Amino acid sequence: MSEPISLDKALASFSEQWSPRIVTAVNDYDVRVAKVEGEHVWHVHDDTDEFFLVLDGELHIALREPAGERTVVLPRGSVFTVPRGTEHKPYAPVPSAILVLEPTGTSTVGDRHDEVPDHVHATTGTPLGSGR
Amino acid sequence: MSEPISLDKALASFSEQWSPRIVTAVNDYDVRVAKVEGEHVWHVHDDTDEFFLVLDGELHIALREPAGERTVVLPRGSVFTVPRGTEHKPYAPVPSAILVLEPTGTSTVGDRHDEVPDHVHATTGTPLGSGR
Repeated sequence: MSEPISLDKALASFSEQWSPRIVTAVNDYDVRVAKVEGEHVWHVHDDTDEFFLVLDGELHIALREPAGERTVVLPRGSVFTVPRGTEHKPYAPVPSAILVLEPTGTSTVGDRHDEVPDHVHATTGTPLGSGR
Repeated sequence: MSEPISLDKALASFSEQWSPRIVTAVNDYDVRVAKVEGEHVWHVHDDTDEFFLVLDGELHIALREPAGERTVVLPRGSVFTVPRGTEHKPYAPVPSAILVLEPTGTSTVGDRHDEVPDHVHATTGTPLGSGR
């Protein structure tokens, strides 16, 4: 029998940044939480949208759209969906926490990406309570 | 070009309880927010899990499981997934706000349900910014 999960407790259970933890599954989707700060990497998910909810701090997402490049700013408590096929790069100006939803098995660096820096974990998510 | 959505502003844009607003779509799923208080209705989604995140207040979800009936309590900031096929009845002891994720077109009263009381809106969700 599963129990409710406190997002605060989930976030307190690990310290790595840009390394999402899977808190629950919904059909064939995973709900993940991550601590983030600084720059992620330009990447694209060819076959899926990606949903972001900012739990704490602030998230910027740079987007390369047909009309050009722009950046959306998500304060705490706001949501945004990056459409499939849109190159994007998340960036957090301060230590922040996000909730992300995408199909199980979706890589944090997408199907195509720039060189992945050391501080970014290329992963399909780590079950809550296990190590990186 | 879509823009980020503040969940606080989304919730401030309507007053009806148990009448979810669709804030964004993720592939063929909808992310909805709802104001809730008091009892919803026993119902079941035969073919989909249902994800709950409590944004404010507290949500109780009564569950009829093979081992018997139990109630899970979700304080603010916690999440829970009701598995497909599990009869459940949400209840909020105080005015509360929730975020729900399920496939687009999923009814708030499921595929089978008890008689729907007047205060519960049987709906697949209303686009943000339109009336009930």
